[in-house]
Amino acid sequence: MPSHILVVGSLAYDDVRTPYDSRSEVLGGAASYFSLAACLYAPVRLMGVVGDDFRASDLERLRAKGIDLAGVEHAKGKSFRWLGRYDHDLATAETLNTDLGVFGDWEPTVPPAFVDSEFVFLANILPEIQSRMLEQVRSPKAVALDTMNYWIERRRAALADVMTRVDIVTVNEAEARQFCATHNVVKAARQILALGPRAVIVKRAEYGALLLTADRIFWTPAYPLDEVRDPTGAGDAFAGGVLGHLARAGKVDDRTLCRAVLHGTVCASFAVEEFSVDGIERADLEVVERRVHELEALVTA
Amino acid sequence: MPSHILVVGSLAYDDVRTPYDSRSEVLGGAASYFSLAACLYAPVRLMGVVGDDFRASDLERLRAKGIDLAGVEHAKGKSFRWLGRYDHDLATAETLNTDLGVFGDWEPTVPPAFVDSEFVFLANILPEIQSRMLEQVRSPKAVALDTMNYWIERRRAALADVMTRVDIVTVNEAEARQFCATHNVVKAARQILALGPRAVIVKRAEYGALLLTADRIFWTPAYPLDEVRDPTGAGDAFAGGVLGHLARAGKVDDRTLCRAVLHGTVCASFAVEEFSVDGIERADLEVVERRVHELEALVTA
Repeated sequence: MPSHILVVGSLAYDDVRTPYDSRSEVLGGAASYFSLAACLYAPVRLMGVVGDDFRASDLERLRAKGIDLAGVEHAKGKSFRWLGRYDHDLATAETLNTDLGVFGDWEPTVPPAFVDSEFVFLANILPEIQSRMLEQVRSPKAVALDTMNYWIERRRAALADVMTRVDIVTVNEAEARQFCATHNVVKAARQILALGPRAVIVKRAEYGALLLTADRIFWTPAYPLDEVRDPTGAGDAFAGGVLGHLARAGKVDDRTLCRAVLHGTVCASFAVEEFSVDGIERADLEVVERRVHELEALVTA
Repeated sequence: MPSHILVVGSLAYDDVRTPYDSRSEVLGGAASYFSLAACLYAPVRLMGVVGDDFRASDLERLRAKGIDLAGVEHAKGKSFRWLGRYDHDLATAETLNTDLGVFGDWEPTVPPAFVDSEFVFLANILPEIQSRMLEQVRSPKAVALDTMNYWIERRRAALADVMTRVDIVTVNEAEARQFCATHNVVKAARQILALGPRAVIVKRAEYGALLLTADRIFWTPAYPLDEVRDPTGAGDAFAGGVLGHLARAGKVDDRTLCRAVLHGTVCASFAVEEFSVDGIERADLEVVERRVHELEALVTA
């Protein structure tokens, strides 16, 4: 029996602008990016909420990949919308507008059919909701959480609390520095590790990712791309590759975590090559494995 | 017979300030950092110029390491002085003052005893001088050059010309982007490679270094340090480790270049751990090799 992956997070419509191109009303949200990466490895169960305006065709894109949408609530109102802009370096997003819509007062409950999920990803949402999700899943092999500066600034205590109860924390470099008040990323990761998780993964965008466990430090560079079109969702596609590989392997030892980070890095590379979820949607396990080998060759002297 | 390494560059006194500490009138300059790294691997010949104020004890520190100072000119006037400051991230240096002193109108001539040097490092100086150095060395196995934004802005054509005639170009990430007018570092390296060198190495500070040749792309992360005290000279110590390893190996094939980049990265890690040249001066080949192994383990999944 393959392990199941449960993701709780946003389904959204994004307006994305870069100095080179832009897109309006395209499928986005952490749960979309995550699912489309994770489903390459193992069956995915998605918990999210959509408004009246959410296109059936977009849900169909997810369903076509075998993603179980029984946890998607349909609520009265507008779907989550995000308007963001990137500078010429295609690095940090500037949020021009966020409209939470029905996501704003969503109180998710894990459907009975999902409580036996072995691998869980709590995407970037209110830490208290992440915490309540944790209580509803029966006995997962590994729970990972992601977060962002918004919660670090506004819900620090609740966030630190939920970090003590998960297995894997993923956080981007700037936010790790902010959370730990140090520029040194290894020190920051060590501080988060001291809160209790088994592994901390610092996402460093074009510089790859750093994994820290009690016994291991591992760094992979990013997969070198000729063209980055839209960095949106890179971190969620990354988490999808990480949890996907762990679920496929069915274990969470250090070596498997290192290899999972390689898979996450490659899934992120597909996500950023195209606008919206188009890049990761088109990927398959064969091209992912090929890039993983290339990534390993890149660092082998 | 071991290969000899010739370096042409500055010998200086630095005033360095960081938010945590500072030092005045400490030994600096590209040639100092480079030599103290390279001499771990092979005999080093140094070409530089010092003023009346240069302390005999500082020349003695270099001589004590077996560095051949027959190419150091003593001129009337002041030695090169640099006053720089780093922000709390200890990344980019802000130059508060530069006083070139006797370095300003130095016109170096390669001493007859040095013209048979097999490996040559043209540190960051006027591209026209780098070019004239090239003409004076008989038949080197490999010449590497370093440069900086100052020359990219003021001597672009001369710099591009000398790049066509060397084997290895080392350049930091921001300057590679500036020189090639692209944010994509792989593309930038490819553009420089197209000028003619056999290898381009982009130095990425805390993110390591990227090597590009016609057939190979190689990336090593930086050696993860708990404490960076003074980033000054990192790039020159890096070049010292690279040329040192090449000279010790006596060849410049792709595999040797990759391993040389690992050695450069480790030499840089020793340089930045202490103020001035103290860190790299204290290193020996045994601790360097140990860190090279740790660096390889860091990226092995």
